[in-house]
Amino acid sequence: MGSMMEFANPQDNVWKRENRKLLINTPIFDLVTHDVTPTSKAFTKPFYVLEAKPWVNTIAITPEKNILLIRQYRHGLHEYCLELPGGIVDDTGDDATLLSAKRELVEETGYTSNNWKFIGKVSGNPAVFNNYSYTYLALDATKTQDTSWDEAEEIEEILVPEDKIIDLLRNGNIHHSMMVASLSLYLIHEKF
Amino acid sequence: MGSMMEFANPQDNVWKRENRKLLINTPIFDLVTHDVTPTSKAFTKPFYVLEAKPWVNTIAITPEKNILLIRQYRHGLHEYCLELPGGIVDDTGDDATLLSAKRELVEETGYTSNNWKFIGKVSGNPAVFNNYSYTYLALDATKTQDTSWDEAEEIEEILVPEDKIIDLLRNGNIHHSMMVASLSLYLIHEKF
Repeated sequence: MGSMMEFANPQDNVWKRENRKLLINTPIFDLVTHDVTPTSKAFTKPFYVLEAKPWVNTIAITPEKNILLIRQYRHGLHEYCLELPGGIVDDTGDDATLLSAKRELVEETGYTSNNWKFIGKVSGNPAVFNNYSYTYLALDATKTQDTSWDEAEEIEEILVPEDKIIDLLRNGNIHHSMMVASLSLYLIHEKF
Repeated sequence: MGSMMEFANPQDNVWKRENRKLLINTPIFDLVTHDVTPTSKAFTKPFYVLEAKPWVNTIAITPEKNILLIRQYRHGLHEYCLELPGGIVDDTGDDATLLSAKRELVEETGYTSNNWKFIGKVSGNPAVFNNYSYTYLALDATKTQDTSWDEAEEIEEILVPEDKIIDLLRNGNIHHSMMVASLSLYLIHEKF
């Protein structure tokens, strides 16, 4: 154990699955089942999957070196959460995730940037979700436009000095797993 | 904007929700809807929530300073993923998350430890899930028992030198958002 080869995450002998059945369609995901047969077992049984479009979020940093966070009501926790701007990838094509990141940033906050960089992606929750969440960095971001929220959006903007972000992670003020992952990847790639 | 008070995440005026309806029960979550009324809007409409038990994972470090990872097939991505040992909190009581962390570690890997510490928690996905994922640190972990996998578990153990973990995060070898968050919180709390 322990050679770097093992970390390449080989995908030989992926379990067999067939007979996809759509159980329910929602605006956020489709709940489906497949009949799944483990590679080295003799049984087949249904397992649930949530099929969703990719997600995207943006670490927007102002010329004053503040990171732009948003606070919004979240249905799952039934609480307000401190997060990065972002949303569902509704664009298409090779630049879909970047286009959606730009669109979500300006719609939710009115901020734009001419200096975008891809930071990384994480899987939403590979046990049940089939998608990834993509993170972009937007440097020299400034408020240039009015917001245009969806009917069910009410968003508060909060600017946090960049050097305070690690405190917000340490203290649990930012606790959404994908946002913690996004900001940590930013710190790992750009700061450490 | 920018005072530390604002990061306390106030929960005044949480949106109104009522009429919980169970749509479907699965082994991992219940899919429900509520009728939701935003605080400052005049409409009410249904929103979906995935109700799940808490989740837990463990950063187990051996006396040789290796971190114990597992590779297993994940239904959502239909791929093998590199993760921390862990699972669903099926225990009860004040120590439920710790008990489940210990149980999942020994069931999945046969490793045990006498030196456990709580690292932090992240929300599974507050947009749709109502739960948190708890992370524990298990120091001086050693293989003392046989594994006892569930019927649908096939788990490969991989020991990674602790100082390589940041590379696995940077390179995307570990990409499960909750695992990235857990390991990042460990680095932030214990290393940086």
